[in-house]
Amino acid sequence: MSPSDPSISWRPPAVAEAADAALAQRLQSLLDHKTKPPGSLGRLEALAVQLGVVLRSEAPRLQAPQLVVCAADHGLAAQGVSAFGQEVTRQMVENFLAGGAAVSVLARQHGLALTVVDCGVAHDFAPRPGLLVRKAAAGTADASLGPAMTAVQCVCALEHGMALVRELPGNALLLGEMGIGNTSAAALLTARLTGHPVDACAGAGTGLAGEALAHKLRVLQAVSARHAGACAPLQALAAFGGLEIATLAGMVLQAACERRVVVVDGFITTAAVLVAHALAPAVRGYCVFSHLSGERGHALALAHLGARPLLDLGLRLGEGSGAALAWPLLQSAVLLLREMASFDSAGVSRGGPAPSPTTALR
Amino acid sequence: MSPSDPSISWRPPAVAEAADAALAQRLQSLLDHKTKPPGSLGRLEALAVQLGVVLRSEAPRLQAPQLVVCAADHGLAAQGVSAFGQEVTRQMVENFLAGGAAVSVLARQHGLALTVVDCGVAHDFAPRPGLLVRKAAAGTADASLGPAMTAVQCVCALEHGMALVRELPGNALLLGEMGIGNTSAAALLTARLTGHPVDACAGAGTGLAGEALAHKLRVLQAVSARHAGACAPLQALAAFGGLEIATLAGMVLQAACERRVVVVDGFITTAAVLVAHALAPAVRGYCVFSHLSGERGHALALAHLGARPLLDLGLRLGEGSGAALAWPLLQSAVLLLREMASFDSAGVSRGGPAPSPTTALR
Repeated sequence: MSPSDPSISWRPPAVAEAADAALAQRLQSLLDHKTKPPGSLGRLEALAVQLGVVLRSEAPRLQAPQLVVCAADHGLAAQGVSAFGQEVTRQMVENFLAGGAAVSVLARQHGLALTVVDCGVAHDFAPRPGLLVRKAAAGTADASLGPAMTAVQCVCALEHGMALVRELPGNALLLGEMGIGNTSAAALLTARLTGHPVDACAGAGTGLAGEALAHKLRVLQAVSARHAGACAPLQALAAFGGLEIATLAGMVLQAACERRVVVVDGFITTAAVLVAHALAPAVRGYCVFSHLSGERGHALALAHLGARPLLDLGLRLGEGSGAALAWPLLQSAVLLLREMASFDSAGVSRGGPAPSPTTALR
Repeated sequence: MSPSDPSISWRPPAVAEAADAALAQRLQSLLDHKTKPPGSLGRLEALAVQLGVVLRSEAPRLQAPQLVVCAADHGLAAQGVSAFGQEVTRQMVENFLAGGAAVSVLARQHGLALTVVDCGVAHDFAPRPGLLVRKAAAGTADASLGPAMTAVQCVCALEHGMALVRELPGNALLLGEMGIGNTSAAALLTARLTGHPVDACAGAGTGLAGEALAHKLRVLQAVSARHAGACAPLQALAAFGGLEIATLAGMVLQAACERRVVVVDGFITTAAVLVAHALAPAVRGYCVFSHLSGERGHALALAHLGARPLLDLGLRLGEGSGAALAWPLLQSAVLLLREMASFDSAGVSRGGPAPSPTTALR
């Protein structure tokens, strides 16, 4: 099966639009009656309205938030596209589970349930709490030699993602990933799905510079050219990988079907959203974009989705770290909506046109 | 006493530079050995280094954070420079104490002790927990008619601020304010202390537009011209007010003396930092700037201080709301420093130059 084979005819689930103009108006009216100048909570107001609309409530609560880190290996790593060796994928999975990774620390800080999913790491992990094994394959094939995934693997990973969400509690999902080589897959997908050139979408990843970065760009251009016909979203996904991106795309689709809030991390999770969005554009309304990555290409992906992320801290770590860092802002948005007093309830006078001066200026 | 009287010769406390190059280097080295690509935590890394340096520790802990909202009235409010009437200052103090204001909600969310200080509200509050009365006057005088504060009031408010910090526990201070008319005082101070024109520093405040905003700008230009000789920082502070800004400036000075972390909110608290910085430039190293306000002039004040704030959410509420929203990022920075595993402790392979490709590209 060739990656441009249009026979990957998996039917994505039907996703309803999140939008509810009447509810959005009621939510904005609630915010406008809070004891603050209108609009003075800035982008938190739009966030509060979005969360209320997604959760269909004028007093939304974020419940049992799940931070899910999807990990998988990439055959393309053999082409020297990362500063780290492939073994780091499994080592970092161990680190997530042992509690020593950045995302482990942040999940503890914010009370986020952390689940690591082996979507296709080239290693068999001992079973333990916090680890789910949903392997469609033990890593992708080298996309410079052929498609990264077969159609069967691609669909299997998507469906794993959908099934995962059905198993998890709560109404909010924070997405993360780990996979040495996955900024390459994300760059290839972003280029194909947004129409930008590959070299505008590819960046330093874990820290390439100079000749190593130039080599990565040459590899990605060759891979892109090899799969020039893989234009449909699933064909592109199968051509470039990875298994974690496909699983994340399935999660986004299912979460949107269930009207869960989806907190998107950085470049790689946004690539998964690009795939899900290409299959079902309505997923966009369920997504909160947590941060602008320092990785080139992320800004292009976000612009394609019409998204403005909450944070801009130059993060380029992945793992869901940016999603976790933005999480308190989502909590603030719903708490302000639920708990702030109104002008009436607090006995605070409303603003209006400025009062007339009581003394003449001299 | 005229506002340009150089006899306000209050001596600010001696503030030691926060900088400690050797400790900063050790902190950065600790971060570089954490299980992440170097620099991939973006601006959180510089924040972690700053917090470690201020708190003089390679394993810093933020302890008993105090959110202090300084409230006072402004005589200039009589000139119609705000969309809200002066009575809103006292009403909002009641709202802070009753738990219904934005900053009340955010302080609860983040476990921040909230103290409201009456620095000069034109009202006598009944005593109650969470309220401190440190009145240098019952509001400033109208700066369009004369100096907002006498030299005695100005120095009294500064010393109230210093004494307040001595009384409060913890090693981190989050600053907030309330005072109808205080974007005007902040704009006048920002213009005078940065050298930018008043109309570049003044904005919509609580929501002025059109003729009301044009009126505010005319008032501010007249006030600025009236006090054209008030160039020294304390003379400018006395000329323009307010009592809460002077109290906050005193707090910044004392906090820096005690090597506390100072989390600066928006436009008005930054104006207080401008005053403190003009008196003792070393305060800068103790300040974390939480957000870029939607209020014009804030960006100019931040640029003058060489500061880049953590958040950019279009907030323009004050109260310390932006400082509270950024607080979890400070917590994350110290937790990542303390709790992340190193490559060695986690058994994760380090990155390096990218490995050579194992197959030839075709």
